[in-house]
Amino acid sequence: MPGNTFGRLFRITTWGESHGPAGGVTIDGCPAGLALDLAAIQAQLDRRRVGQSRMTSARNEPDQVEILSGVFEGRTTGTPISMLIRNTNVRSSDYDALRDVYRPGHADYTYDAKYGFRDHRGGGRSSARETAARVAAGAVARQVLAPLGVTFVAWTQRLADLEAQVIDERTIEDNPMRCPDPAVAAQMVELVEAARRDRDSLGGVVEVRARGVPAGLGEPVFDKLDALIGHAMFSIPAVKAVEIGSGVDVARLRGSQNNDPFIRADDGSVTTSSNHAGGILGGISTGAEIVVRLTAKPPASIAQAQQTVTQAGEPATIVVKGRHDPTVLPRLVPVAEAMLALVLVDCWLQQRAARLASE
Amino acid sequence: MPGNTFGRLFRITTWGESHGPAGGVTIDGCPAGLALDLAAIQAQLDRRRVGQSRMTSARNEPDQVEILSGVFEGRTTGTPISMLIRNTNVRSSDYDALRDVYRPGHADYTYDAKYGFRDHRGGGRSSARETAARVAAGAVARQVLAPLGVTFVAWTQRLADLEAQVIDERTIEDNPMRCPDPAVAAQMVELVEAARRDRDSLGGVVEVRARGVPAGLGEPVFDKLDALIGHAMFSIPAVKAVEIGSGVDVARLRGSQNNDPFIRADDGSVTTSSNHAGGILGGISTGAEIVVRLTAKPPASIAQAQQTVTQAGEPATIVVKGRHDPTVLPRLVPVAEAMLALVLVDCWLQQRAARLASE
Amino acid sequence: MPGNTFGRLFRITTWGESHGPAGGVTIDGCPAGLALDLAAIQAQLDRRRVGQSRMTSARNEPDQVEILSGVFEGRTTGTPISMLIRNTNVRSSDYDALRDVYRPGHADYTYDAKYGFRDHRGGGRSSARETAARVAAGAVARQVLAPLGVTFVAWTQRLADLEAQVIDERTIEDNPMRCPDPAVAAQMVELVEAARRDRDSLGGVVEVRARGVPAGLGEPVFDKLDALIGHAMFSIPAVKAVEIGSGVDVARLRGSQNNDPFIRADDGSVTTSSNHAGGILGGISTGAEIVVRLTAKPPASIAQAQQTVTQAGEPATIVVKGRHDPTVLPRLVPVAEAMLALVLVDCWLQQRAARLASE
Amino acid sequence: MPGNTFGRLFRITTWGESHGPAGGVTIDGCPAGLALDLAAIQAQLDRRRVGQSRMTSARNEPDQVEILSGVFEGRTTGTPISMLIRNTNVRSSDYDALRDVYRPGHADYTYDAKYGFRDHRGGGRSSARETAARVAAGAVARQVLAPLGVTFVAWTQRLADLEAQVIDERTIEDNPMRCPDPAVAAQMVELVEAARRDRDSLGGVVEVRARGVPAGLGEPVFDKLDALIGHAMFSIPAVKAVEIGSGVDVARLRGSQNNDPFIRADDGSVTTSSNHAGGILGGISTGAEIVVRLTAKPPASIAQAQQTVTQAGEPATIVVKGRHDPTVLPRLVPVAEAMLALVLVDCWLQQRAARLASE
Repeated sequence: MPGNTFGRLFRITTWGESHGPAGGVTIDGCPAGLALDLAAIQAQLDRRRVGQSRMTSARNEPDQVEILSGVFEGRTTGTPISMLIRNTNVRSSDYDALRDVYRPGHADYTYDAKYGFRDHRGGGRSSARETAARVAAGAVARQVLAPLGVTFVAWTQRLADLEAQVIDERTIEDNPMRCPDPAVAAQMVELVEAARRDRDSLGGVVEVRARGVPAGLGEPVFDKLDALIGHAMFSIPAVKAVEIGSGVDVARLRGSQNNDPFIRADDGSVTTSSNHAGGILGGISTGAEIVVRLTAKPPASIAQAQQTVTQAGEPATIVVKGRHDPTVLPRLVPVAEAMLALVLVDCWLQQRAARLASE
Repeated sequence: MPGNTFGRLFRITTWGESHGPAGGVTIDGCPAGLALDLAAIQAQLDRRRVGQSRMTSARNEPDQVEILSGVFEGRTTGTPISMLIRNTNVRSSDYDALRDVYRPGHADYTYDAKYGFRDHRGGGRSSARETAARVAAGAVARQVLAPLGVTFVAWTQRLADLEAQVIDERTIEDNPMRCPDPAVAAQMVELVEAARRDRDSLGGVVEVRARGVPAGLGEPVFDKLDALIGHAMFSIPAVKAVEIGSGVDVARLRGSQNNDPFIRADDGSVTTSSNHAGGILGGISTGAEIVVRLTAKPPASIAQAQQTVTQAGEPATIVVKGRHDPTVLPRLVPVAEAMLALVLVDCWLQQRAARLASE
Repeated sequence: MPGNTFGRLFRITTWGESHGPAGGVTIDGCPAGLALDLAAIQAQLDRRRVGQSRMTSARNEPDQVEILSGVFEGRTTGTPISMLIRNTNVRSSDYDALRDVYRPGHADYTYDAKYGFRDHRGGGRSSARETAARVAAGAVARQVLAPLGVTFVAWTQRLADLEAQVIDERTIEDNPMRCPDPAVAAQMVELVEAARRDRDSLGGVVEVRARGVPAGLGEPVFDKLDALIGHAMFSIPAVKAVEIGSGVDVARLRGSQNNDPFIRADDGSVTTSSNHAGGILGGISTGAEIVVRLTAKPPASIAQAQQTVTQAGEPATIVVKGRHDPTVLPRLVPVAEAMLALVLVDCWLQQRAARLASE
Repeated sequence: MPGNTFGRLFRITTWGESHGPAGGVTIDGCPAGLALDLAAIQAQLDRRRVGQSRMTSARNEPDQVEILSGVFEGRTTGTPISMLIRNTNVRSSDYDALRDVYRPGHADYTYDAKYGFRDHRGGGRSSARETAARVAAGAVARQVLAPLGVTFVAWTQRLADLEAQVIDERTIEDNPMRCPDPAVAAQMVELVEAARRDRDSLGGVVEVRARGVPAGLGEPVFDKLDALIGHAMFSIPAVKAVEIGSGVDVARLRGSQNNDPFIRADDGSVTTSSNHAGGILGGISTGAEIVVRLTAKPPASIAQAQQTVTQAGEPATIVVKGRHDPTVLPRLVPVAEAMLALVLVDCWLQQRAARLASE
């Protein structure tokens, strides 16, 4: 199976290149009868798109979504939902110089190694522009999950050495870094400006959480909820590490510290008094918050000279033009939420098959 | 799709519970014509099995593998390879007390939430005993890849606060921690003994590498090589973080530091002069070493009293009996190698479909 | 997995409703490097589209295909090929009367039973209009197979009681019935006219063949080549029977008659002196012609009063308006060829994984 | 994906060769909580196994099934059910002469063409012995469906020119042909004896029906219920034609005859007054009886001299030894029921994902 499809029962297939006429996604398996809120889909796309602030690239795309199928009289029909996003602000000529040379940190060389041939304009299919399609699909997934009380939140937790605390989640969308710590957010903005002046870029960490997730989601063994999340998150461009719950810090904990004691919640249900597990035990959701952290590398496109080779293997110096982000973190926030929503809606539909009498 | 199958073209399906009569795996899609080395499969199982040293649990299973199909006159036929491993050292009575109570850090509660019912003996299907089947399948995958020159190595890189350097890879199998740093290995052994005396357990980090991997493996977008690795590694019990290449450390690097410059290798091929990327760009292998790190939590089974609740939601104190490892790290080493081999053999077969004229 | 995807390595996902703005298909897994002939794709769509003759419905759609991704400088890139076909000649008002009543022989009732809700206009997703997307994808599959020497031909073999012989394959496209027997073709045209006057419709048989198929395609057991063909052909609207080779006639043959003796061909290869098997033994191609026959029911939409019930279960009389074919056979011809091409290209890519050294 | 797995949510993977030590099946996705009736599974295997009468081969296998996982205290746990059937009556030496020569009508040549290599003993993986595993899995599927009121029945409808009527379904298991028409059954037995004396074999037709199937099962477009049935039935060895409902006879019907009028049933539900459609409209079940007919070829193994070639392409004469059935029909009956049950249980689980509020 080629790699452009994600999910089992709520399946999305995305398509489109950075500098082609359009990109899009087909959702197969959205349950019938959902009153689809188109404005909410567009709102998520608006969160992801570039040109929102000086933090992000200057390529300004409206990213207007068109729904071509699967919705009738405002409700989903159970048949495929095809969504199309036109590319309008394409400056392919920026990339003419890259036809025969490999940008460090990009997929140019590996696509050539794989296919013997590539669309060199803006990274072609490997461009992060593809994540617009994911955000559109994720916005539908969120609407399927909303009646269950499942909600999502993500934020920039670290930029280089600047680490934020969650001072007030309600402020996340108030600053260009999507950071819930206003003082650190201001420092982050300055650090991004400094990196831009240096013609360089910065890495960092995004944390994403899902709340209200019912216990019991995820399949044993290979399709554990954490395995599906790992798959989803590592499929996002630039992600180099994924952590669940306490993540890399569990290396330093003892079992007596790391085990989350089970307790009875006020409503009589079973819960845990701590959440080192990040809401997942044995690959299956516990009902506690799902907690995931993604480390993103500094964007590979930097406006300074770099050493590389040409397609023929000759040494070359390259300066990458085009319009690029000095950090991907603020735009990674809605993408991470979308991927988590796509995983959870799929597990929720799958869970209906787990018992003789479903639900 | 339920979760007990991994892979697309080299597909494995595992089955079996900790205290059932047997466990096993069916490999579908192993190419025909491979002269299968059974001793090499058994050798990998022997590396994983318990009772090898005081580092690991006292449950001593021979883990003898039987091949029931798919091999004729010593060669694979292209049809399913069924492998069976009998459970011989089953002491289910250890678990009678756990029928109605949830062990902290285990899947007891979540399996009940999912299925309404569970095999409580030794974790049932959620037991790490299932990884024997993966190791057997991975040993076949290694044999498929060996003629290409692909090799695997893994080791314990950290135990709690003890961090090892790679002093000499050839010493990895010489100490019970599978650590390539003899001095640190000795400290680790002492730390494990101390934890055992404390009736507690320890977390840590395993690093796994694949060498000789051809450039071009992995699919774009959702089935990136790193996404498949993330899926595979998070499906291993106890893993809470997965890193590729420089992993969480890329948060602190600038693009100019993190980008690996392309250079021409002595043999004329394209390579990179550093490997922050861990051998993967745009989700596709570069030909450099694939580098993956796994953080494993301290085992949840500890021989001290813990607070929990019963199935009915009543508070309870639990002391987990049975035979358990104070750390999973040495046994995680062969499992991590097996999972990486399973991902790579699958990508290698998939790659044959990428171009009009294959290979 | 929802049902709008076909294929494993050459995977197509179609979308669109009869009276929505557009329909389309995404091909994932088309090998890279194919010089794509767009005119040949359009030519296949032109063969399928309606309004070509009095044999077919009066809804005249240009069915102009737009390629939105996956092709760069005229060649396939290995990434998804998205194709879009606008619906331009939509007269939804014809269907207003059908909102609450179930047309006999159509999917109205079953879609309501499945989804609780349906797009009633022209059958919505269940419309045969969806087959345009398949024909576009099949036209790409044919181009992948053409360099191997694989060709396809199909024709109307029977209409009601009129059975045709293959007098001259070159005449198939010369008559509106796509029948290779000019005299019978003329009788068929008269029979269709008579049925139209009677406000009725006619069933029949289409035969489709693939030539030049290499031996060895198809997988054992569940994905036998005939099983994949059966899946593909029964997915075409109106098909009620599928036969391979001698088909239903083998019930009357003895083993000594039905077994095809193996002989040595002039070029030294192994072949058979007869072809009752239709080119498939044990689910795997023999190298002989693949022979498939489809029986199609008379179209359900007839312009005469029929008894039925409303959504509320009340008896009702219905007269189906709209523009409908009195027989589907001529338009089934290109769809059958497309589906066979899609099966074979997928098996051909899959076959590359069957041996250690591919091809 | 290799071909030894069937189903999406109720997934079976079979393995084993005719003359290997054992064969088996793993069911992944059986819902938890089913009180599994092992005797009922064995009873289905007993219906399929050989040596029951002179109608069938002399190879007498007890086909005793062992369940190795997935069942705890008599109930399914939701985890994989592994079932094993030992081969006990293996006379491989019968096949020594076939190592280098291709039996007409068998998969010997095509397996060589595919894999470059084969297990020649008794057909290896291509042997109909594999269907034992399907019958075991189908027996579990039937138990999942039974509480819904779904039942299955199949019978021999035709042998060569002898066509049976359904005189009394209760007599099907009373005669060795599994034919519900006692007079015709007696004639069939004589015809089989005559064919055996002639060292020849006979083809025929099996009809299989499912009753009590809820409306709404099956997915649109490519995974129509009839497409999944076509896939399942053509995967059974010897099947050369599959018909749904009136099947090949619809070629001769007009729309006004073939359309099944909708009526209101006595219980207020919607049904049809005839069933030419065989219980499926638009690929989705109507609630009426599912009606499927399979045409099976005469067994290829006949005890008379046949012309063929050797692996080297040299002409040869072959007489197939071994223990073979002169007709497959009576043994096809339980296999056909099993495959239909496997399709329907899968569609039933899939249907739970079709709407927002399941069931």
